[in-house]
Amino acid sequence: MNSDIPERMLLGPGPSPVPQRVLQALSSPVLGHLDPAFLIIMDETRDLLRQAFMTTNEMTIPISGTGSAGMEACVVNTLEPGDRLVVGVAGYFGERLAEIARRAGADVTEVSAEWGRVVDPERLEVVVRRVRPQAVAVVHVETSTGVLQPIPPIADIAHRYEALLIVDAVSSLGGVELRVDDWGVDLCYSGSQKCLNAPPGLAPLTAGKRLRDRLGSRKTKVQSWYLDLSLLSTYWGATRLYHHTAPVSMIYALREGLRIVQEEGLERRWERHQRNAELLREGLEALGLHQFAQEGDRAPTVITVRVPDGVDELDTRQRLLTEFGIEIGGGLGPTKGRLLRIGLMGAGSSERNVLTLLAG
Amino acid sequence: MNSDIPERMLLGPGPSPVPQRVLQALSSPVLGHLDPAFLIIMDETRDLLRQAFMTTNEMTIPISGTGSAGMEACVVNTLEPGDRLVVGVAGYFGERLAEIARRAGADVTEVSAEWGRVVDPERLEVVVRRVRPQAVAVVHVETSTGVLQPIPPIADIAHRYEALLIVDAVSSLGGVELRVDDWGVDLCYSGSQKCLNAPPGLAPLTAGKRLRDRLGSRKTKVQSWYLDLSLLSTYWGATRLYHHTAPVSMIYALREGLRIVQEEGLERRWERHQRNAELLREGLEALGLHQFAQEGDRAPTVITVRVPDGVDELDTRQRLLTEFGIEIGGGLGPTKGRLLRIGLMGAGSSERNVLTLLAG
Repeated sequence: MNSDIPERMLLGPGPSPVPQRVLQALSSPVLGHLDPAFLIIMDETRDLLRQAFMTTNEMTIPISGTGSAGMEACVVNTLEPGDRLVVGVAGYFGERLAEIARRAGADVTEVSAEWGRVVDPERLEVVVRRVRPQAVAVVHVETSTGVLQPIPPIADIAHRYEALLIVDAVSSLGGVELRVDDWGVDLCYSGSQKCLNAPPGLAPLTAGKRLRDRLGSRKTKVQSWYLDLSLLSTYWGATRLYHHTAPVSMIYALREGLRIVQEEGLERRWERHQRNAELLREGLEALGLHQFAQEGDRAPTVITVRVPDGVDELDTRQRLLTEFGIEIGGGLGPTKGRLLRIGLMGAGSSERNVLTLLAG
Repeated sequence: MNSDIPERMLLGPGPSPVPQRVLQALSSPVLGHLDPAFLIIMDETRDLLRQAFMTTNEMTIPISGTGSAGMEACVVNTLEPGDRLVVGVAGYFGERLAEIARRAGADVTEVSAEWGRVVDPERLEVVVRRVRPQAVAVVHVETSTGVLQPIPPIADIAHRYEALLIVDAVSSLGGVELRVDDWGVDLCYSGSQKCLNAPPGLAPLTAGKRLRDRLGSRKTKVQSWYLDLSLLSTYWGATRLYHHTAPVSMIYALREGLRIVQEEGLERRWERHQRNAELLREGLEALGLHQFAQEGDRAPTVITVRVPDGVDELDTRQRLLTEFGIEIGGGLGPTKGRLLRIGLMGAGSSERNVLTLLAG
């Protein structure tokens, strides 16, 4: 262990605490990416990912990059230059979706909501009816605001107008109810370092039949070779056609994180995240702190708190880190200096952590 | 340690053997990506990368993806749609460069050479003089053929015609002489899992002033948000502007791999790789096996052997793996079934490994 790497209690908006089992898996001997023993591990990882996403999608793989690479993969595979995207923007990551789509040459229409609130499905529908986009994209848990966007109403709209639905599940997969197949989510991506408790570096992604059809009817090649889902599927599929060298160690870690998810069970995880978020909220209110996310729209994985007048946000975070070894996050973009963000994700969502943080 | 992950002697074309020190670093506690302790580690990693690349380039970072992500980052940042690229193609990875550039909307001219030989600088110059490209790209060690392309003559041509030079150093950085600044290489990328002996998953990349100037005069945004070097530079630079969550654990491992490089010294590493490659070649010749790469053009990191008539290549590799736990590689693309590829990279380049393999 390196002496310059201290132990922290990671209660920021990610990365979340990585259990010892996962760190041990990470440091297993590296196998060649075509070794028969590694191919079995790839298959097992895909099966576990399907369970976590609640999907039977064949195209379910970890992208070899962070959550943002998963976001970019969904966008550039779904859209061709000139295609139309309607994206719900109620925070930093909605904005990122829009920016990535514009760079891919898409015609992007944003449906905005005030930071701290959800995107209103009725307003979204009005826009979708007018624009008739090829795809609709929303963020399930907006990490920058701590808001939970209900997905089924958005899925209804997307499908009624024959658009594909892309869902950012970076801060929800494994911690918040998410049913890819039941809800009809066409593309969904996440990050390894949130509720799955692996280190950052992989982006679990799943895509269904409607994306496969779209890929088959594209007139242009996907602009990114690295993120081309057709090529990635043949690599991760039965033909094992070489694409890039899989990040072997990170896949060991993701598999171990997913095994922990499976052992606990999704429903029990969702309940645990809900329970500990409520405990934290009560404690914060008791301390006289006010939440940023609108009541009724609050996510159980990222809890956002307004910085009281006269309190220095950066100083608060630095003292928590240096005096107690606890990491929490600050605001992003327009909320910088005005917000504290607390992540209770995966193994991080425990009563002990909540009480320790409140004591700090 | 997981029981389904056997120990292998990794003598394929990558990943290479990961020393215990590096695996230990990998399993250190995960820090937040904005933790002051992690920022110090990022800076140290960048310094070590500069030493390995022999450059003072400010823009020297590990891309959060595999070597192919580094390739795509170099291409999409350098070229805008309609820009011209001349690429030397003498194997699988030269072809990949061309393909990625075409997907980025570039006008690509290939200067081909027979697999197993270098790209002839005189032929390249004729094409460059005619095409007047914005950039020239070549592969330093073509992993698919085991050929070493001398870079200084290509750099001379690129600069004489005012083109930026992109060099693929995936299978050379840390194992073969490579002098980014002295040779005038404008962009260079590598992979963590070759001569640097970290696990696969990161792509060290360096880019100089001429790329910065190019970025400043682009008319369009870089098509990939995830691989946008300007954004990545502000994240890795003094402002620390949030871009994506750095793959913390993999950066620990890369830093440790680079420390080992620094401790041994680049020149001594180059000599060691040369010496062990010669030992292996002599042994292979003694066994009556013929090399694929042309004499005089052979790389010391990837040694390629023709499969003798009547020998089943796949069977040979499988027996080495199951009976001796030794991994070597087969041919790619047109050489599939006709070639064996042996990697002697970083810690893998040792007299003991050569003798064990020859005995096997």
